[in-house]
Amino acid sequence: MEIGFPYSFEGLSLLILILAESALETIPKNLWKHPAVKRHSKKRKKHPKFLLLDRSYHHAAMKTLPNNQKRGRPDIVHFALLEALGSPLNKERLLQAYVHTINDHVIEVKPETRLPRNYNRFLGLMEHLFELGRTPPNGKALLKLEAKTLPQLLREVSPTQVVAFSTAGKPRTLEDVVSELSSVERPAVIIGGFPHGHFSASTIRLADELVCIDEETLETWTVTSRVVYEYERAAFLPLKRLKR
Amino acid sequence: MEIGFPYSFEGLSLLILILAESALETIPKNLWKHPAVKRHSKKRKKHPKFLLLDRSYHHAAMKTLPNNQKRGRPDIVHFALLEALGSPLNKERLLQAYVHTINDHVIEVKPETRLPRNYNRFLGLMEHLFELGRTPPNGKALLKLEAKTLPQLLREVSPTQVVAFSTAGKPRTLEDVVSELSSVERPAVIIGGFPHGHFSASTIRLADELVCIDEETLETWTVTSRVVYEYERAAFLPLKRLKR
Repeated sequence: MEIGFPYSFEGLSLLILILAESALETIPKNLWKHPAVKRHSKKRKKHPKFLLLDRSYHHAAMKTLPNNQKRGRPDIVHFALLEALGSPLNKERLLQAYVHTINDHVIEVKPETRLPRNYNRFLGLMEHLFELGRTPPNGKALLKLEAKTLPQLLREVSPTQVVAFSTAGKPRTLEDVVSELSSVERPAVIIGGFPHGHFSASTIRLADELVCIDEETLETWTVTSRVVYEYERAAFLPLKRLKR
Repeated sequence: MEIGFPYSFEGLSLLILILAESALETIPKNLWKHPAVKRHSKKRKKHPKFLLLDRSYHHAAMKTLPNNQKRGRPDIVHFALLEALGSPLNKERLLQAYVHTINDHVIEVKPETRLPRNYNRFLGLMEHLFELGRTPPNGKALLKLEAKTLPQLLREVSPTQVVAFSTAGKPRTLEDVVSELSSVERPAVIIGGFPHGHFSASTIRLADELVCIDEETLETWTVTSRVVYEYERAAFLPLKRLKR
């Protein structure tokens, strides 16, 4: 994993964006024999171990799975990464995104990655990534997957300040939070990559601050796009880009 | 179609959001016999007239289609509507979204609509909508589809000011544009629901102002989420919601 990016833009530091405990994993072994999984595996012509867990197809099979309300939603990572990678902030190479998964894998996403817009193609890409650990298979890896915990990831990227978003956090406007964060040297944000429930205690311990930006739970992609946009705003990036 | 929503929140008017010329349509008749379309139709077990045109599956068939660079991307409407409907602005019932399509259909989206997150289920829903003109088939319609041009739609919703977004427009920051717009009585925004190219001349004529908010083309869902967020910001909605 590449670390130590001293890149900045007129004083604006690179923003480290981490989707944490994301609902992205291959189908767990104890579900392989469930009829819903076998049916889906046959249709996709792939062994279940090479398929992603997806509530849209495996709802019935997921009933007995521990922590199941937080699992099986690859679409969340898909949309959130599309929002992050398509942003002007990323086009300026001022964004580095990581996906940490519920089973402690970490995907490093190179800023130049162009993700498939089509969900089924995204699933195919992620399945390859879980199988091979990188994509594309040859040449420069745009996506790299490794077994890694969130504390390990944070030690590697060594941010100077970490803000995590949760309705259980301290109420603060996003504008306020991000304008503060944009002035530190290596800022990082942690956004939950799961549909329901809360961060685990171990994730919360990694954050310098846990903030609540709305009275209701916002979707991962909504928080992602707003954080990125506020970060751009804090640096007057919209105006600077228009004036070039 | 219901019109005349005088709803406002402490002085903030309802925002009318129109995705225009959107890349959402059923497969045109002259493509029904193309091998790529027949293959897909067989797999989906539906006649091509009931299937959505989708570049992911019909790329080869679309080569001869006029204006094809603007067509066959249902994912754009999917993501953009998810961003719109999941926003705090919509939860406050201060957003009314419409999808105008490249072939002059208009979908009225009720704010309480909960769209499927899964793309394939979204396709199924849209296919039903094109077939039946409404969904769900019984009870209150959450989505209604009618043959309607963009000028017709605008006459019905009769906004006091219309801003359209295009890289061909006048460079202005989104903050500036939206803070102005948020003070008018019936503001409307037009965002292109297509992947490449520009608005047609007839669409541009409907806008009071054509603005460019970034030097590069931003994706529909990115513009949508930013417009909605700026509109919330202009009314201090984030702070108001946190203080309730």
